[in-house]
Amino acid sequence: MAALSPRRRLPDHRSGPLTEQPLRGDYARRDFARCARLYGAPFTWPARFPIPTQAAARAFYWLVDRDPAQAKAFARAALGAYFGAGRDISVIEEVVATAASCGADAAALAAALATPEVKARLKTETEAAIARGVFGSPFIIVDGEPFWGTDRLDHVERWLATGGW
Amino acid sequence: MAALSPRRRLPDHRSGPLTEQPLRGDYARRDFARCARLYGAPFTWPARFPIPTQAAARAFYWLVDRDPAQAKAFARAALGAYFGAGRDISVIEEVVATAASCGADAAALAAALATPEVKARLKTETEAAIARGVFGSPFIIVDGEPFWGTDRLDHVERWLATGGW
Repeated sequence: MAALSPRRRLPDHRSGPLTEQPLRGDYARRDFARCARLYGAPFTWPARFPIPTQAAARAFYWLVDRDPAQAKAFARAALGAYFGAGRDISVIEEVVATAASCGADAAALAAALATPEVKARLKTETEAAIARGVFGSPFIIVDGEPFWGTDRLDHVERWLATGGW
Repeated sequence: MAALSPRRRLPDHRSGPLTEQPLRGDYARRDFARCARLYGAPFTWPARFPIPTQAAARAFYWLVDRDPAQAKAFARAALGAYFGAGRDISVIEEVVATAASCGADAAALAAALATPEVKARLKTETEAAIARGVFGSPFIIVDGEPFWGTDRLDHVERWLATGGW
């Protein structure tokens, strides 16, 4: 039962990226890779972490309006490109190439990503998510009950199976 | 796939107590109580959270040197007093009473908690923990492999059962 006294507390840098915080950064990097091995998920440390993901998120909603199944495939492919292959999906060309690999019209998507309408769509979706209490990902709401994080997916499954507790 | 752009990012108050952060504070309070119900653990929101736990930690190490089994019982009782009954175990009298309920000598413990030796013991233990990469609780190290958090206890069990992955 070790404690850190208020006066001797470690520098609290939790406002920076998790992976760059003292002690917990080293742990987080190890835990990410270990979880990926446990789940059998391909994993490569991205050269940049974290990254802005607006381009990928805008592409997702543009695709949702045209082909929801393709949008879902793109979401999986984009996460796989970033965490599985370590590709920088903050770059628009990477986003467009990933969407194209899922069957999307690359030229039309590239043109759309620059429009105010597509930018506004993401803003609206993000504000709606925040209004529902969403602050991270994955975030799953079951009948109004919020669950955040990969380490709560088993609670989601249990909640769905039992109706809650 | 909602994203927060760097310019529109929510106020990042993650350096404060988890339960007082915007959005995630409300979620954390709900998640704490929901996890307690799932695990069948008594749970009462402490009036003060978080609290300094030096007195409880010093009592633990003082007990370890005299009766390790009693120290273990005290650790469980102290966590139960705080999270189960909502009692403020930052208060020395609460710590002593909790230890006494586990069979400890209340007068001897109360006297010991004020000594430089007992304070130094906790400091040494805490520094040793930090040197091993510990930054939170529960923190379990299995053959050099670190696991942090209640939501990693299933990984600990799997690591012990399989020898790692």
